[in-house]
Amino acid sequence: MEFSLKYCFLICELVVIFTNVESLHFGHTVSSAKKLLPLQEPYTYRTYYYDQQLDHLGFATMQKFKQRYLLADQFWNRNNGPIFFYTGNEGDIDWFCNNTGFMWDIAADFKALLVFAEHRYYGESLPFGPETYQNVSNLNYLTSEQALADFVELINYLKTNLPGAANSSVVAFGGSYGGMLAAWLRIKYPNVVVGALAASAPIWQFTNMTPCNAFYDTTSATWLQASATCVDNIHQSYNTIDMIASSVGGYDFITSTFGLCTPLKSKYDLIPFVEFLNDMYVNFAMVNYPYPADFLAQLPAWPVKVACSFLNEPLQGKPLLVALSKVSNLYFNYTGSTKCVNWTSTDSTGSLGYKGWQYQRCTEMVMPICSNGTNMFCNIPWDLQQVSDNCYSQFKVRPRENWVALEYWAKELKTATNIIFSNGLYDPWSSGGVMQTLSDSLIAIQIPEGGHHLDLRGKHPLDTRAVINARLEETNIIRNWLKLTPVQ
Amino acid sequence: MEFSLKYCFLICELVVIFTNVESLHFGHTVSSAKKLLPLQEPYTYRTYYYDQQLDHLGFATMQKFKQRYLLADQFWNRNNGPIFFYTGNEGDIDWFCNNTGFMWDIAADFKALLVFAEHRYYGESLPFGPETYQNVSNLNYLTSEQALADFVELINYLKTNLPGAANSSVVAFGGSYGGMLAAWLRIKYPNVVVGALAASAPIWQFTNMTPCNAFYDTTSATWLQASATCVDNIHQSYNTIDMIASSVGGYDFITSTFGLCTPLKSKYDLIPFVEFLNDMYVNFAMVNYPYPADFLAQLPAWPVKVACSFLNEPLQGKPLLVALSKVSNLYFNYTGSTKCVNWTSTDSTGSLGYKGWQYQRCTEMVMPICSNGTNMFCNIPWDLQQVSDNCYSQFKVRPRENWVALEYWAKELKTATNIIFSNGLYDPWSSGGVMQTLSDSLIAIQIPEGGHHLDLRGKHPLDTRAVINARLEETNIIRNWLKLTPVQ
Repeated sequence: MEFSLKYCFLICELVVIFTNVESLHFGHTVSSAKKLLPLQEPYTYRTYYYDQQLDHLGFATMQKFKQRYLLADQFWNRNNGPIFFYTGNEGDIDWFCNNTGFMWDIAADFKALLVFAEHRYYGESLPFGPETYQNVSNLNYLTSEQALADFVELINYLKTNLPGAANSSVVAFGGSYGGMLAAWLRIKYPNVVVGALAASAPIWQFTNMTPCNAFYDTTSATWLQASATCVDNIHQSYNTIDMIASSVGGYDFITSTFGLCTPLKSKYDLIPFVEFLNDMYVNFAMVNYPYPADFLAQLPAWPVKVACSFLNEPLQGKPLLVALSKVSNLYFNYTGSTKCVNWTSTDSTGSLGYKGWQYQRCTEMVMPICSNGTNMFCNIPWDLQQVSDNCYSQFKVRPRENWVALEYWAKELKTATNIIFSNGLYDPWSSGGVMQTLSDSLIAIQIPEGGHHLDLRGKHPLDTRAVINARLEETNIIRNWLKLTPVQ
Repeated sequence: MEFSLKYCFLICELVVIFTNVESLHFGHTVSSAKKLLPLQEPYTYRTYYYDQQLDHLGFATMQKFKQRYLLADQFWNRNNGPIFFYTGNEGDIDWFCNNTGFMWDIAADFKALLVFAEHRYYGESLPFGPETYQNVSNLNYLTSEQALADFVELINYLKTNLPGAANSSVVAFGGSYGGMLAAWLRIKYPNVVVGALAASAPIWQFTNMTPCNAFYDTTSATWLQASATCVDNIHQSYNTIDMIASSVGGYDFITSTFGLCTPLKSKYDLIPFVEFLNDMYVNFAMVNYPYPADFLAQLPAWPVKVACSFLNEPLQGKPLLVALSKVSNLYFNYTGSTKCVNWTSTDSTGSLGYKGWQYQRCTEMVMPICSNGTNMFCNIPWDLQQVSDNCYSQFKVRPRENWVALEYWAKELKTATNIIFSNGLYDPWSSGGVMQTLSDSLIAIQIPEGGHHLDLRGKHPLDTRAVINARLEETNIIRNWLKLTPVQ
């Protein structure tokens, strides 16, 4: 083990320069392999665009941009029925809308208006159109504060202009970074939203709030519940990749075994390749749902267990890599339609905005993540200076690692009210979430065997008892905010 | 009366173009006449400069500037004694420091560290040095949100770097706009300050929160308590000024009677002249203190009463203007050392930053103020479009009149805690203040016969029972926040 760790360290030491900055999207660095399949649920909504202020927090520019939002009023009690407002995160709002079935499932009971607001700089809500990402100076208005202000202005606009909405209570819903935004919206603007369901929102995955190894520890635990041998094999694989790559024909072997679009050619290719695999392990844990789904990738039910079925006996050398390639194939080619595995792409071709999130990770969203090598992963240090230098060379910005803690109250949440923090225990991001109830109205809901914001997904025949209970609890808490009687 | 109002309307109609934008500083448009006299209280403190982030809310610029702050640690229990933090407003922090004796008076009892933080763009805390006000684009970072972030960063810096401060509770103190900032600091950053004393903070003097005539109505009431005849005379004077000015030699008469530095020459000079007088009436009401003081001007005790002593019999024509000039002379030349009355200056030569506040009034601080002419003043309409156009021509910005309501919760304060809203009933700004207690921990304290944040001033032998009681109540509420036993 010691020997393997030594090799492992060599690879991962380099990996960290890129990891934690470019990767560890909420669920996606491997977006290039993702395809948007036909929607499982034909949700009906209309698309609108709001003339949004580019800079809410300065007055020099009066520029506006078109912020996209989706509206479904077929369930709504137009006499001040509640508004369920999804605080869009880093991607196409259509995609989030169609992956947030919970809101649709409960809308009729609440007679709620559904609104899904796209986050600025993602999807179609690009302040500078096609040039948005061409010039880093255009990115200056991509902050969580501006995004919250967008939501506040949009809600105000709707309440002012939609007949019957003037006295509607607004409940914020969000998952992942969107869950953080939902919680922060309630924290900073309780005048605007009566409460927030913050699903899988790692609001404490920041400097000095959570041990940096917690994220990979949680990921490892999720794989461990499937199979200890599987975890040992993956841990061993870092060393194996290094050894095979160093052997004659090794790069070609890895390339062909994994079916890579771009061949591995040198030791330096191993860095992004290992990062790519690490992200895949994380994503598997996130989408470890109890039924076949297509959130980050099209996968069978309990995908971690399926992945581990290829790694359930101790393996070494090339057989280990062959088995690992089956895991990769499961993730990237479950449907059998993928020609090759694109491990090098960093552009978003899926529904998540890769570059925008990279920028946010380089400015406010500084989430220290590391591994000490005692879990499934190898040793992955967190090097803020390295991250910062990388950010500067890419975006001409440097992260301010303490700002989010000050701006959004860190662990001093006791004066906040009406927030549900839900987390699936399989989800790596739960490590940075609020896992314990903090007060009568800051409620933590843990979902055993739950993946990344599983509770926000639409109901499914294979739903676990845990997620069914979680949704019922959430529904009743929201009913309480709206002064409605609870349901059983 | 109808006739007089007609004339009055003609003058004031024009006045409004300037009033409410350039004037109605918290206590000063007539700053040019102000001199900094020797301090009554020799408070001892040291001056420091913090390397402050220019833009907390965007990352494109990494520029920093020197934010001045004052520190007095002679009373402090260095084992995590509390920090009393003055949230600086629109002027030199030295000046506020020396006019906030209340903090000094109670510091020893609380064993508190005193910190007075200068507001960016005022005093010495000019982000672009002498060029700060030379180019309107430099003003883009002059917002209340940036100022609050300055305070947050500075508090964090002090708690991190001052030995013994790590676990200190911080209480915010502020008066006027600084009181608004103190309240807003608690509202938006309860993680940073345990409570706030917001003295004379007109947080509701914004669009749709307070009738726009309330401000001048309150001013009138303050003059009315001194003398009804006095109020009638002032109301009559608008017409009289117009009539005298239209007569042969009228402008010269007014110029010489009032001892104006710059002569009145035409009808259009009457606009700023009347505005100047209106501001003076407002300032008199603000500083209607029970003892001689030198806050906005050096004045005797109960200056409104003294002013009205010149106007206590019905007057008309020139005798009315002669009497009015005595009021003006009282305000601008109580010491007898002023050579002439400078009614045209709009630059700040006193301790308040005139241009900065003008900019803030043109962006966030949109406070509709008007008079319907039924009070002491003439008819002064509020014309937002006119204000906006004026702002655009001056600063290339336009006010966003609804933003402050959304950002700082307007009247939806019920989720906030630990704020004292104190107001003197003589103070015109009390009209936009929180005058009624909102909850167990949002306490309104009304101070009968109190001027503008009288309670923040140092104790004085001529203090009224009302202000003594107010300070005692404030002290005990602060003790409660700090978990100390109350005093009698």
